[in-house]
Amino acid sequence: MRLSQYFLPILKETPKEAEIVSHRLMLRAGMIRQQAAGIYSWLPLGKRVLDKVCRIVREEQDRSGALEIMMPTIQSADLWRESGRYDDYGKEMLRIEDRHERELLYGPTNEEMVTDIFRSYVRSYKDLPLNLYHIQWKFRDEVRPRFGVMRSREFLMKDAYSFDLDQEAARNAYNRMFVAYLRTFTRCGLQAIPMRADTGPIGGDLSHEFIILASTGESAVFCHRDYLDLKVPSEDVDFRDPQKLAEIVTTWTTPYAATEEMHDEAAWGTVPEGEKLAARGIEVGHIFYFGTKYSAPMGAVVTGPDGKDVPVHMGSYGIGPSRLIAAIIEASHDEAGIIWPKSVAPFDVGIVNMKPGDAECDAACDQLYRELGAAGLDVLLDDEDSRAGAKFATMDLIGLPVQVIIGPRGAKAGEAEVKIRATGERETVPLSGLVGRLTA
Amino acid sequence: MRLSQYFLPILKETPKEAEIVSHRLMLRAGMIRQQAAGIYSWLPLGKRVLDKVCRIVREEQDRSGALEIMMPTIQSADLWRESGRYDDYGKEMLRIEDRHERELLYGPTNEEMVTDIFRSYVRSYKDLPLNLYHIQWKFRDEVRPRFGVMRSREFLMKDAYSFDLDQEAARNAYNRMFVAYLRTFTRCGLQAIPMRADTGPIGGDLSHEFIILASTGESAVFCHRDYLDLKVPSEDVDFRDPQKLAEIVTTWTTPYAATEEMHDEAAWGTVPEGEKLAARGIEVGHIFYFGTKYSAPMGAVVTGPDGKDVPVHMGSYGIGPSRLIAAIIEASHDEAGIIWPKSVAPFDVGIVNMKPGDAECDAACDQLYRELGAAGLDVLLDDEDSRAGAKFATMDLIGLPVQVIIGPRGAKAGEAEVKIRATGERETVPLSGLVGRLTA
Repeated sequence: MRLSQYFLPILKETPKEAEIVSHRLMLRAGMIRQQAAGIYSWLPLGKRVLDKVCRIVREEQDRSGALEIMMPTIQSADLWRESGRYDDYGKEMLRIEDRHERELLYGPTNEEMVTDIFRSYVRSYKDLPLNLYHIQWKFRDEVRPRFGVMRSREFLMKDAYSFDLDQEAARNAYNRMFVAYLRTFTRCGLQAIPMRADTGPIGGDLSHEFIILASTGESAVFCHRDYLDLKVPSEDVDFRDPQKLAEIVTTWTTPYAATEEMHDEAAWGTVPEGEKLAARGIEVGHIFYFGTKYSAPMGAVVTGPDGKDVPVHMGSYGIGPSRLIAAIIEASHDEAGIIWPKSVAPFDVGIVNMKPGDAECDAACDQLYRELGAAGLDVLLDDEDSRAGAKFATMDLIGLPVQVIIGPRGAKAGEAEVKIRATGERETVPLSGLVGRLTA
Repeated sequence: MRLSQYFLPILKETPKEAEIVSHRLMLRAGMIRQQAAGIYSWLPLGKRVLDKVCRIVREEQDRSGALEIMMPTIQSADLWRESGRYDDYGKEMLRIEDRHERELLYGPTNEEMVTDIFRSYVRSYKDLPLNLYHIQWKFRDEVRPRFGVMRSREFLMKDAYSFDLDQEAARNAYNRMFVAYLRTFTRCGLQAIPMRADTGPIGGDLSHEFIILASTGESAVFCHRDYLDLKVPSEDVDFRDPQKLAEIVTTWTTPYAATEEMHDEAAWGTVPEGEKLAARGIEVGHIFYFGTKYSAPMGAVVTGPDGKDVPVHMGSYGIGPSRLIAAIIEASHDEAGIIWPKSVAPFDVGIVNMKPGDAECDAACDQLYRELGAAGLDVLLDDEDSRAGAKFATMDLIGLPVQVIIGPRGAKAGEAEVKIRATGERETVPLSGLVGRLTA
């Protein structure tokens, strides 16, 4: 993408309304724009990051055996009356009346609807296990939306729902998602720690939040230092091996870890003083096992091997890709701007043409741009006629992993300067070997 | 994907509520499920087709120079008061009040919001042309939603919005989208004919609908037979060449073509009798040039080369991927089910294991499944223990372009039967050369 043909509305001033660094940087880097309280547009740069995050989420859901569907945003109130949550949910639910005065709502989550899909088609335990997920916009009418996309009203959520014959099988489904989540966050460049959590309005008796440590985190968290060194399962982890999955989950749930609400001073006291990590955390995922809480009242039953009908055991599993992006920025930035992990960077490489209009400089930049593109990299070429200082500031702000700076003198000498955003390292390298080096 | 691990709820009965063939087939093939009047879930098979269609739409938008963003579904009523459409839009607009009694709405389209984005950032003609698009759910509260996703209330729409300095540049932007649309529909396996159209609630003075001919079409259309032989621009069409684009548009708008509302009996009379094509059509895209209709009242101005501020000239361009899928099925099916064009088929190949449990048969199927997958094809392997007739009926119903049938005898002989869904052709071929043949 050439910057001259792109829409990247960088803000020079720091927006006053932004209280946390990710919100400030997303506004300044032209990633998002607020359209109403807690409702955002994603501008081209933000949309690219959102796509990259969703792709990772999707790949790990698919790998674990979950199947992607797409449920609508608007739901019928009647469905929520079946589970009893229509009245329970309170003012966070956006309630709507259509032209025929039928009661609708904008889905804050989809347990009821997916249970309705299940009960409409599935009759036998032979069709289990089943895990259906979608990535769809949700709406929760927060009293005070804030922190940009970290706590917005309309937000994107990946929500998966598992269906199993009994508690043991459901526990295995829970473990599959647990492992998929570990892999998802690692691939997004985050170190996420699973912590026992309160089940809240979803209900159930087993739940973990995945928390990343960040000084700006919304809640206090307490965990054993061991978590920082635990190994995340590789991509060839066998999701069909319940034993292996259970071992991984045991490893990842044995050291002490708890959010403020679940904190247990007695257990915390047993952690050696030097191993205690009391910090702030941001929730990036939340998984639940809630048994038959929805299937029983809604009649989602299957015939078991013994010929008897039983309500299915369910779990639900959420990741908010929009919030996840803010969390990544909270965890990875400096004074100058965002520092994207490679896997979610909007572009892999930024080329800075220091003197657009200079024939040699243009030719060197264009050739590199074409060659890197042909090699499968996403490249942003700054071909605009602006000051060097502004060009560097923009590149640092938008945080592409690698910057390649080409000026007239370098172009003539066949050289470019390569800057690694994360470390600030700079090196002058010959243009000839650059493509090989950047694609290695 | 192995069918035994997939969620493909085929319906044996023809659903009574479905009045048109695409609706019937989408329900029967387990692609969609109605959740409320005019509100649908996309089940795994449907979601795969939706993704493939969106990918084509996106590739052609990007190729034409449009930039992808993501605007929210919920909008502020105040924004629509600025353009004057809040009161005009009537009951089709889903109006919502939040917990603080602020008036919101579920966007039926995004002219106002995108104009607001534009005016917030763009100041100079130097930043033009600009075309921003998104693929997002819309809601239109139709009095009588029907025909499945052909006329649903919640539906997916790709809507693009162009911004230019003057009418001439805007006309070029219109032409870019015109050509992108021709390419998009062709790639989806459809022959779409652009027809002069009424501008309706969007407004403006230039508009074309892209119509595909189908006997179940919602409206009568009249066109010259020449359209059937016109050549659609190839992928190396140069979108930076206004002259070339104008020529293509001229070629595609010169022969007579009109929907019922715009039909002109006098002009129709000049078409030679043998060249007249009076048929039924389905609208799959609609493009508009409406000048300063939104930019003037909303203050979206840029400074021109002469230093004076002028409101930008705009157009908007819509394709409904969800409706497009129904249209594809209307245009491509037979008694037995859907016949997917290759480009949008949910899977490229279906393998039918005639005797799961037979070691040789399983081995032959598994090997082919792995090899086709490794070659980059999407494959559905029917590994379920069901009757041959049911297996064939399912494969025909879901309409994968190629079926490979492997039975115990064939597996022993190293042979499979290949069936081409569109033609019904069947051929016995050696298993050894099959991967090469199917990936050629």
